[in-house]
Amino acid sequence: MNNPKIKISTESYKGVRDFFPTDMFVQNHIFNTWKKTAEKYGYLQYDASVLESSDLYKAKSGEEIVNEQTYTFTDRGDREVTLRPEMTPTLARMIATKRRELPTPIRWFSMPNLFRYEAPQRGRLREHWQFNVDIFGVKTIDAETEVLSLASDMLKSFGLKDSDFEIRINSRKVIDFILNEMYALNTESAHRVAKLIDRKNKMSAEQFEQNINEIIPEAGSSFLTLLNSKNFEEFVSQISRGEEIDGAIKEIKDLMNNLEKLGITNVIFDQTIMRGFDYYTGIVFEINDKHPDNRRAIMGGGRYDDLLSIFGSEKIPAVGMGVGDVGIRNILETYGLLPKYTPPTKLYICLAEESAKGYAQDLAQKLRSTDISVAVDYSGKKVGEQIKYADKSLIPFITVLGEEEVKTGNLKIKELATSLETVLTEDTLVNFFKNSIK
Amino acid sequence: MNNPKIKISTESYKGVRDFFPTDMFVQNHIFNTWKKTAEKYGYLQYDASVLESSDLYKAKSGEEIVNEQTYTFTDRGDREVTLRPEMTPTLARMIATKRRELPTPIRWFSMPNLFRYEAPQRGRLREHWQFNVDIFGVKTIDAETEVLSLASDMLKSFGLKDSDFEIRINSRKVIDFILNEMYALNTESAHRVAKLIDRKNKMSAEQFEQNINEIIPEAGSSFLTLLNSKNFEEFVSQISRGEEIDGAIKEIKDLMNNLEKLGITNVIFDQTIMRGFDYYTGIVFEINDKHPDNRRAIMGGGRYDDLLSIFGSEKIPAVGMGVGDVGIRNILETYGLLPKYTPPTKLYICLAEESAKGYAQDLAQKLRSTDISVAVDYSGKKVGEQIKYADKSLIPFITVLGEEEVKTGNLKIKELATSLETVLTEDTLVNFFKNSIK
Repeated sequence: MNNPKIKISTESYKGVRDFFPTDMFVQNHIFNTWKKTAEKYGYLQYDASVLESSDLYKAKSGEEIVNEQTYTFTDRGDREVTLRPEMTPTLARMIATKRRELPTPIRWFSMPNLFRYEAPQRGRLREHWQFNVDIFGVKTIDAETEVLSLASDMLKSFGLKDSDFEIRINSRKVIDFILNEMYALNTESAHRVAKLIDRKNKMSAEQFEQNINEIIPEAGSSFLTLLNSKNFEEFVSQISRGEEIDGAIKEIKDLMNNLEKLGITNVIFDQTIMRGFDYYTGIVFEINDKHPDNRRAIMGGGRYDDLLSIFGSEKIPAVGMGVGDVGIRNILETYGLLPKYTPPTKLYICLAEESAKGYAQDLAQKLRSTDISVAVDYSGKKVGEQIKYADKSLIPFITVLGEEEVKTGNLKIKELATSLETVLTEDTLVNFFKNSIK
Repeated sequence: MNNPKIKISTESYKGVRDFFPTDMFVQNHIFNTWKKTAEKYGYLQYDASVLESSDLYKAKSGEEIVNEQTYTFTDRGDREVTLRPEMTPTLARMIATKRRELPTPIRWFSMPNLFRYEAPQRGRLREHWQFNVDIFGVKTIDAETEVLSLASDMLKSFGLKDSDFEIRINSRKVIDFILNEMYALNTESAHRVAKLIDRKNKMSAEQFEQNINEIIPEAGSSFLTLLNSKNFEEFVSQISRGEEIDGAIKEIKDLMNNLEKLGITNVIFDQTIMRGFDYYTGIVFEINDKHPDNRRAIMGGGRYDDLLSIFGSEKIPAVGMGVGDVGIRNILETYGLLPKYTPPTKLYICLAEESAKGYAQDLAQKLRSTDISVAVDYSGKKVGEQIKYADKSLIPFITVLGEEEVKTGNLKIKELATSLETVLTEDTLVNFFKNSIK
C-alpha cells in the first residue's frame, strides 16, 4: 500500500482452499448435515484452537511424525506449537481436564479444520475439515453400534443409498492376538506386519507376500492364507480359539447383529482394516464408497480405551470416528447429490429513481424485521442492469421502485424464473413472502 | 503412549480457548446471530484458510508489524506463512482473483478466527473470532448507512437496547485535510499525529498535549482546540472550508441523517476515531458499549476504496466492519443477555433391564427419523443414576424401559423440571414431542 509498485499475488497459500459463496454454500450443507445428525443422537458440540502444544502429539506419535507431517514451529516464547493434525488428542486433553465434573456417558462432536504438511505437488490438501464423533464411558459394543448407526444415518441424510457404501469392520484385539500369540511376533515385527497390512493396497500381491515372508519366514504362507480369508467364518476357523480371543470374536458378531437389527446390512468383516497403529484397542471400522471411481475410505474410527492415560488420568472406554469434508464433497459430486446454490436473498429492490431510495430502505427494514432477506441496489446503474444483477445472483424476486410506487404504495413483485408479476402493498408483502418461500 | 511414564499436560496452548459444550452453546448463539443478521441484508458467506502467504500482510502493514505481532513461520518449502491476523487482506485477495466474474455490488460476510501474537501475561487472547461484513461497488454513503444499520440490528438481535451502545463516526478525509492541508504536516508528522490521536485515551491529557506541541510547535494549541471540540458544529466551524473538504463534511451529515431516518439515533460525531492508519480512505466508525465497566469499542470499520490496488486490480469502492466474539460475549455478560444452556437432546432413554435394549434402540431410531434428538443410556448403571445423569445434563424428558414397557408398549414420559408423567405409545410419542417442544 505504501509502495504502489509492489503487486501482491492473488493466489492462496498452496494446498489450502478459498471458499467463495457458492463453495461456502456446499460447505455449509456438509456442516449442517453433520451437526444435525450428531444432535439427533444427543451429541454435544465442542471446539478448541487449531494451535496446540507440540508435546500433545509427541506423546502419541513419536517425535519423527510430529516434525515430518505436521505444521510445527517455535513461538517467540520458545514454545513448540503445532497446527492440530487431528482432533482426538485435543478431545482427550479436554476430557482429562474436566474428568471429574463430566458425568458419563460423554457424547461429543466437533467439526474442526485439521492440518497436515503434504508436498503440494501430490495434489493433496494441507487443510481439511473433519466431522468427529466420540462417545466415552460405554464399555459394551453398543457404543460401536451407535457410532456406526450415526455414520450410516449421516450418509443417508446426504442422499446416499445403502447400496452406495459399505461398512467394514475389524478388531485390533483379534489382529493383535494373531500377531502376538498365534505367530508369537515380537513388538517390532508385529508393528511391521500391521504397517504392511495397512498399506496392502499400495503394493502388488507379490511384493506384499515377499515382505510378509521376510518377517514371518517359518509361517508366512499360513499367515497369508489367514489374511486372504474370503469371509468371517473362513477367517475365524483358522484362529486357534481360547477364552481370550473368543470375547473379541463375539464382539464382531454382536456388532454385526446389532447393526442388522437396526436395518443396517451393508456391513462386511474385513481383516485388513488397521486404521493406523496408535491408539485403537478394539473394534476398528471404515466406510467405503462402493463407486468404482472412488474406492478410498470416507470414514474411519474405532475403540480407544487407553488414550486418557497419557495425561495421567484413569482409563475411560471410548469409541470415535472421523469423516472428512473432501471425501463427502467427492461422493456428493459422484452421485449427483450436490445441493443447488441459492442465495439467502429473497427480494432485490431496484431503484428507478434516486428519490425512491428512502422508501426502499424503509421497506427493506420492514421486511428484514420479519426475517425476510432483502437487498437494495445503490449502484445508480440503469434498472435493466440492476435486474440483470439479481438474475445473475439467482435472487428469486425483484421489485422496481420509482416515484409512482412511492406515491401509490402499489408494489409489483416479479418472480424472475417465471416472469410472473404480483401487485402487492407493504402490508400484503410480508405474507406473500412468508407463504411463497419454503 | 509408547512410554506410559511421560505424562502430558492437559493445559491448552497459552492465550487460546477450549470450547466445552456449554461454551460452544454461547459461541453458536453468537455465530448464529451474526449469520442471520448478515443474511437478512442479503450478504453471502465466504471463508478461506487461516494460512496465508506472509507477503499479503507485508504489502499493507510494513514488515515490522508482520514479524512482531503475527504468527509467522517458514514452511518446509521455504515459504513464509502467516496465521491471518485480520480478514480484510484475504477478502481483498479473493475479490481481486475473481474481479471480472463477480457482478457488483458484492455483499459478503465471514466469521473467521484471527491470530495475534500477544504476550500472554497481558491476559489478552491470541485467537479470536470476528464477524466481518463488507460491501463492494457502492460509492455513495448508502454503503456506510447499510453497514451501520446492519451492525445496530445485530446488537439489538442480541437483546441490547439503543441506549446501551453508541455509534461514533469520523472521516479520514476530514482528518487528512486538517493534517495535510490546514496544518501542512509532512507525511511522517501527519502519521505521528494520527497515531497519537488513536492512542489518546492511553495517556494523560498533559502527555498528549506535550506530544502534539512537539510535532506542531507553532500551532499545537489551535490544533488541540479543534481536536477538543464538543460537537460536530463546533468542530466544523474551525475548519477552513473549501470545495475539497465540503464534500467530506457533507458525507458525515448525510450519514447521520440517513441513520436517523431509519430510526438509528444513538450516533455521535467523534473526531478522535482513527481506526488505525492503513487502508481507510473515508468515513470511519466504531460502536462503543455505554456501560461504565466496558468502554472499549466492540465494533470498528470504515470505507477503504483503494485496497485492491495492491494486487494490481482496478480500484473498487468498499465499506467494511468487524466485530469480535470476545467483545460480544462481554456485553452479553454485562447486560445479562447470555442464553440459557440447553442440550439438543430432548429425551433420555434409561434402561431398567438389559433385555429392553433392542426395543430402546428401535424407538430411538424411530424418533430420530422425525428429527427428535434422543440418547440411550448404555452404562448399565442403576436407573436412579441414569435419571440423575439426564437431570444433570439438563435433558428435559426421560423414559425408563424394562420388560413391562417392551411387552405393553405403554411408555411413561417424565418431564424432569415438573415431574409430570404422560403415558404414551410409540405412535403418539412423535406427536407429543413435536407439540411439546417448540
